[in-house]
Amino acid sequence: MSETIDHDRLVGLRREFHRHPEPAWREFYTTVRIVEECRRIGVDRLVVGPDLLVTESRTAVPDDADLEAWLERARQRDVDLALLDRLRDGQTGAMAVLERGEGPTVALRVDIDALPREESTDDEHLPAAEGFRAETPAMHACGHDAHATIGLGVLEAIANSDFRGTFKVVFQPAEEVVGGGRAIAKSGHLDDVDYLFALHIGLDHPTGEVVAGIGDFLAVRHFRADFRGESAHAGANPQAGRNAVQAMATAVQNLYAIPRHEDGATRINAGDVGGGSATNIVPEDAYIEGEVRGETDALMEYMSEKADRVLEHAAAMHDCEVSIATHAEAPSAESDEALVDIVAEAADDVESVTSLLERAPLGGSEDATFLMQRVQERGGLATYVGIGTDHPGGHHTATFDVDEPSLSIGVDVLSRAILRLPPVE
Amino acid sequence: MSETIDHDRLVGLRREFHRHPEPAWREFYTTVRIVEECRRIGVDRLVVGPDLLVTESRTAVPDDADLEAWLERARQRDVDLALLDRLRDGQTGAMAVLERGEGPTVALRVDIDALPREESTDDEHLPAAEGFRAETPAMHACGHDAHATIGLGVLEAIANSDFRGTFKVVFQPAEEVVGGGRAIAKSGHLDDVDYLFALHIGLDHPTGEVVAGIGDFLAVRHFRADFRGESAHAGANPQAGRNAVQAMATAVQNLYAIPRHEDGATRINAGDVGGGSATNIVPEDAYIEGEVRGETDALMEYMSEKADRVLEHAAAMHDCEVSIATHAEAPSAESDEALVDIVAEAADDVESVTSLLERAPLGGSEDATFLMQRVQERGGLATYVGIGTDHPGGHHTATFDVDEPSLSIGVDVLSRAILRLPPVE
Amino acid sequence: MSETIDHDRLVGLRREFHRHPEPAWREFYTTVRIVEECRRIGVDRLVVGPDLLVTESRTAVPDDADLEAWLERARQRDVDLALLDRLRDGQTGAMAVLERGEGPTVALRVDIDALPREESTDDEHLPAAEGFRAETPAMHACGHDAHATIGLGVLEAIANSDFRGTFKVVFQPAEEVVGGGRAIAKSGHLDDVDYLFALHIGLDHPTGEVVAGIGDFLAVRHFRADFRGESAHAGANPQAGRNAVQAMATAVQNLYAIPRHEDGATRINAGDVGGGSATNIVPEDAYIEGEVRGETDALMEYMSEKADRVLEHAAAMHDCEVSIATHAEAPSAESDEALVDIVAEAADDVESVTSLLERAPLGGSEDATFLMQRVQERGGLATYVGIGTDHPGGHHTATFDVDEPSLSIGVDVLSRAILRLPPVE
Amino acid sequence: MSETIDHDRLVGLRREFHRHPEPAWREFYTTVRIVEECRRIGVDRLVVGPDLLVTESRTAVPDDADLEAWLERARQRDVDLALLDRLRDGQTGAMAVLERGEGPTVALRVDIDALPREESTDDEHLPAAEGFRAETPAMHACGHDAHATIGLGVLEAIANSDFRGTFKVVFQPAEEVVGGGRAIAKSGHLDDVDYLFALHIGLDHPTGEVVAGIGDFLAVRHFRADFRGESAHAGANPQAGRNAVQAMATAVQNLYAIPRHEDGATRINAGDVGGGSATNIVPEDAYIEGEVRGETDALMEYMSEKADRVLEHAAAMHDCEVSIATHAEAPSAESDEALVDIVAEAADDVESVTSLLERAPLGGSEDATFLMQRVQERGGLATYVGIGTDHPGGHHTATFDVDEPSLSIGVDVLSRAILRLPPVE
Repeated sequence: MSETIDHDRLVGLRREFHRHPEPAWREFYTTVRIVEECRRIGVDRLVVGPDLLVTESRTAVPDDADLEAWLERARQRDVDLALLDRLRDGQTGAMAVLERGEGPTVALRVDIDALPREESTDDEHLPAAEGFRAETPAMHACGHDAHATIGLGVLEAIANSDFRGTFKVVFQPAEEVVGGGRAIAKSGHLDDVDYLFALHIGLDHPTGEVVAGIGDFLAVRHFRADFRGESAHAGANPQAGRNAVQAMATAVQNLYAIPRHEDGATRINAGDVGGGSATNIVPEDAYIEGEVRGETDALMEYMSEKADRVLEHAAAMHDCEVSIATHAEAPSAESDEALVDIVAEAADDVESVTSLLERAPLGGSEDATFLMQRVQERGGLATYVGIGTDHPGGHHTATFDVDEPSLSIGVDVLSRAILRLPPVE
Repeated sequence: MSETIDHDRLVGLRREFHRHPEPAWREFYTTVRIVEECRRIGVDRLVVGPDLLVTESRTAVPDDADLEAWLERARQRDVDLALLDRLRDGQTGAMAVLERGEGPTVALRVDIDALPREESTDDEHLPAAEGFRAETPAMHACGHDAHATIGLGVLEAIANSDFRGTFKVVFQPAEEVVGGGRAIAKSGHLDDVDYLFALHIGLDHPTGEVVAGIGDFLAVRHFRADFRGESAHAGANPQAGRNAVQAMATAVQNLYAIPRHEDGATRINAGDVGGGSATNIVPEDAYIEGEVRGETDALMEYMSEKADRVLEHAAAMHDCEVSIATHAEAPSAESDEALVDIVAEAADDVESVTSLLERAPLGGSEDATFLMQRVQERGGLATYVGIGTDHPGGHHTATFDVDEPSLSIGVDVLSRAILRLPPVE
Repeated sequence: MSETIDHDRLVGLRREFHRHPEPAWREFYTTVRIVEECRRIGVDRLVVGPDLLVTESRTAVPDDADLEAWLERARQRDVDLALLDRLRDGQTGAMAVLERGEGPTVALRVDIDALPREESTDDEHLPAAEGFRAETPAMHACGHDAHATIGLGVLEAIANSDFRGTFKVVFQPAEEVVGGGRAIAKSGHLDDVDYLFALHIGLDHPTGEVVAGIGDFLAVRHFRADFRGESAHAGANPQAGRNAVQAMATAVQNLYAIPRHEDGATRINAGDVGGGSATNIVPEDAYIEGEVRGETDALMEYMSEKADRVLEHAAAMHDCEVSIATHAEAPSAESDEALVDIVAEAADDVESVTSLLERAPLGGSEDATFLMQRVQERGGLATYVGIGTDHPGGHHTATFDVDEPSLSIGVDVLSRAILRLPPVE
Repeated sequence: MSETIDHDRLVGLRREFHRHPEPAWREFYTTVRIVEECRRIGVDRLVVGPDLLVTESRTAVPDDADLEAWLERARQRDVDLALLDRLRDGQTGAMAVLERGEGPTVALRVDIDALPREESTDDEHLPAAEGFRAETPAMHACGHDAHATIGLGVLEAIANSDFRGTFKVVFQPAEEVVGGGRAIAKSGHLDDVDYLFALHIGLDHPTGEVVAGIGDFLAVRHFRADFRGESAHAGANPQAGRNAVQAMATAVQNLYAIPRHEDGATRINAGDVGGGSATNIVPEDAYIEGEVRGETDALMEYMSEKADRVLEHAAAMHDCEVSIATHAEAPSAESDEALVDIVAEAADDVESVTSLLERAPLGGSEDATFLMQRVQERGGLATYVGIGTDHPGGHHTATFDVDEPSLSIGVDVLSRAILRLPPVE
């Protein structure tokens, strides 16, 4: 397999994606470029826009002005405007299908969105040094540029192989906001899938290490709490206000202080907060965008109930109202033993794989779990594969980067695993 | 006096200012309209742009992009573009001078900026009901539209009188951010002033009530604290972050909890806060824009030192750095008895003044105190006059409004006071 | 007058009281010693025990075990046990009455309780250096030892004078917990009083300074909040607890952060808190004993309502219950001009008075206000006199002490004022 | 084995211990009763008082007054006063030794202290209903009454068996404060031990269930933080204080909010807090007794460093000093496979064992780990055995109780395991 992989093309694609990062539901340019590549490779079917997912099952979709601003950014580049138009209103992502006769139906899911954060300008940061640093107000700080690239690489490898059956590559939008998985799961596109692969690069595994089956997905809930009080002049009438920032700060302090749980790992984060308008006005508005996670669905529920209690009473303590909305949720999931074994065997055949782990924990959350559950509920098998890569900064930080040789390793391991799949009786 | 005041013109001007509110240092359109009115009235000298104030003594000046956006808004209206150009870089405000021979030098200071808040759309809110609600993302929620109008009204009244001496009306920018007073005080334009009047409308005094000398100005300091920690993936590596939002929330809680002081009133407000970027990233940045006040300079200093201590240790507790900047400061001040008496006598002559208070406290802060101190240090007298107005919502709230008959009262009282001033020997 | 005051006796008495401080409602030894002195002086009537006050109107009375322990301490000293027995159950305090024919009814109220705090052992601290430091687990850190002494001194001076009328000296228990004033006011003993004097030593006024009429009494409410959650093993089942200490800490943070009020001074203190039982048990119990104050009754009410709101929601946030009890309350009050003038005239005659203030603020609370209100409601006059004393440490601190020459000054000023009172028609 | 166990005697002993619970280092009566039982059984050697442990290695020893009060309680009962005297100064605990010729040296460690909490008086609570509720201000809320009983039962069973070798039963004091383990480990009494057994009853395992090797001991550190500020009158001079209760509350809030860690379980508890002295004094003192735990020593260190940082900056924020002392620490540990197997085989032979787990996590901390480490470092083997018991309330709660049939099960399983031990070559 490996001799047929065009490593330079992979690196080129990855850098192109890296240079134009687009956050969740704004993957306009990214989707168009993916579709163009699929066309180049030659596929039997392409599914995009409203056909890809159940529009109303999407979560955490930004407002129209925000979407339009990113769509406009994409339009400025030299792209297929008709295709772009099909993606409007945040209907991003694509699915490429190869139909190669009798045989199992196999799917590979990769995610393609970036994070709304600034990228490092440090000279030690390779994308900055080599000129492919982000040109938008976002950053591929979690390696989804590599995921999209590996998805295309596997597609090309399978297209050029003697694979028999049906192969679908799902380029999923909006993973970072846990927003796209459910909408694709509900589309029915995976209902006939016998084997599902998902993957992630990095995760503190070095280049050359492969994890055949990642587990310990944390169930997650993203929430937004909006506090509303009443403003007043902070000098003349401080007592006349109902201070939404005091409510928010009290909530933040107590959210992080939710008791740990004997049954396993939990998480809490108030990741984006704000409030008030001017130094001399008692703040009437404030908000917290945050998340809770749990090693099991029950642990996530525990955190979620405690968080709601904190938010409600922090508001009431300061005579404010609060409305709490759930923006996204994803369950936990497990990789299937049988499929893990096949990936392990495939990895064993790849020379550049220098370390093979059967199992490792994710310790984070992923909405791939919606797809895994859907396939498993219908009798199919699923695994979530880890492709190691040396990354200087941690995931989601300004200096995250991908060690590019891992791109080929990912393509190689997954293609070989797919070609090793047994027929389904 | 009163028979010569054109009340309808005053109302028209005030509504025009109200419809186009501009926050501190962005009073581009407002300044141009003021200058146009001065020209109509006919003045001997006009001072604008770099000539008005000491550029480097301004505080809380917004960044270039922000200034440019507001300048562009002003350009869209039918205005004198050459004049507008002189105001660029946030050099707003104007001074009109009447030179009428021998006699005292008298100054009237009015402020002209709006607040960065949204105005009510409620039908009960007169500006909304009668179609002069704010058309910019700001609001005249503290009556500076009325102040600018009264300033022009007094200018016209004095221009048409037999006043002898020099009369200067200072249309000061950036009072709300305590940003303009010092820069004008340092300009020297007031160094020859014998009598200085400043004024404020409302302050919970009803229409028909006048306060001859307002006191109890709270000394104030506006600060900005920027917290910097380190980001991490909130699910996978929560311990790897240094959480700037936790630092900020701890600070907010403890800022408001600074002990009260036996020597008098103190104030604290965290009026504008924020932090973080995404639900699943441990926040690396956060900020607080806030203010402390004190009934005396010493009380303000007390609050300021305590606040710095809280900010520093809240940061260090969460392993974050913090930088604290002072954006603006204004001292306390007092109205002079002799001038208070003259205003009281003048008010006594005005029929529509139904209630006269010699003295009342402000209970807030004002950078007019810089001008008052400057004049008083050089042997002049100063007073800060309150012109009552029925206002439905409190100052700085979305439903603040001015009862328009108070405009004429303000013009009448101040004009009469100026004309009663004794010669200076 | 002054030549007849036995200064050494005053100093001896004061040191005796100082050596045996007893907190609120435990003034067993103190009361017995006062009664013994009254007998020595010779009075017409003595009121003690259940006759002195309305038992059920007392507040903040300690539990039986606590009272018994202090009673036992008093029994160990060489005292009148029959008298001691009348005081049991915390019915402390006494009133001495001189009946000298026709004339006004005059009352002097002094308080006699100590504070539950440790006294300094520092050599610089005079009571430690000279051997009259507290021998009980309490301390006269607010000068009530001096008050009791001055009360006795004035009683003796009036007894030896040609005073005509009725003179009552009320030795009031439990001022520090705002616990005794109401119960004495309700007793009716003051209902016939024409002139009431109360006094305080120190208050940052130096020896030789006298304040004829102290005002600005802060209205006060003492409260106790008991939080109840549920315990759990902190290592094995942290989530199973409902943490009362977290509730308490959240409340403390937010109590101090109740917004300041434009109408005047407010106060808040969480003066005595606790919770939990062992490091490895999630705390199921916690409490706050605290107080709120306000320059007016309305400001105190404002603080009180805000405090209740904070306490309730801090509890609910951590799934705990809270019960809030009011232990004591006292209103605000004012000194009457006519009586202030008489004290001023009297002080003018006393050579050792080197500085005389007509008026000064207390800036604290006092349940003498119950007595003042009672007398004033029935047409009598009241004033609260300040007797300066150089005190090294502040009131309520471990190094507070009284400069003993001020004892004679207090006796002198008050006796002279009483003898100057006009007849009542 | 089982036929020879006198179940009624075990129940009687356990209820006797339960009725007289004594907290850490105060196990005076408990130790005497244990020694009396050992004498009845007949042992070759008894080690008590200063001979048992390294006095200076004890941690969390209470002060003299506290020890004396408990010693006095023990004296009131009908006990061997000479023996009691050897235990004074908190030198509690005992070791019984059987010397039966050639063979392995085997040790069993049981802990004997109670918790400083009140026991339920509810009729549903068996000790209350059947009259053996605690008669001291403490409670056997963690089953150490059962541990002492099982220790004696195993001692008697081995004494009556054909066991060859040396058998030591260590009745360890002060486990709950992590205070005794290190001092016994350092004594050298276990340095020749080939096989060490420790045990715990309950832990949410039902009666009939046995865990052959418990693991996942959380490393733990108990700390005490003393905050010192400065007092002031809360009404008159609130700003003059340095508020230790505000510092403490800020610390509590932020201690619980220390970020979770990706590497595993962590714990934090502020189990016993307090501060201040009176409602009207700004609190000058406050304290936190708390603990941090971690699944590994490194995780405990992580928590410990973060906790210190929080404590220091919470103090500094409020201008207070803080001193932090470590009262106790215990490491993590593991049970040895070979010994786990022997326990499992023994349990298999006991009819009343209805469920056998090879391994289960503790999820808490234990200073048995000091003994386990000591034995393991010298080449011996150790295991920590769980004996299930139906317990109505959780460990450390007011309604904890032991299902008494589990006493015999514990004796049976451990005796059989000891008799199955292979000779040491």
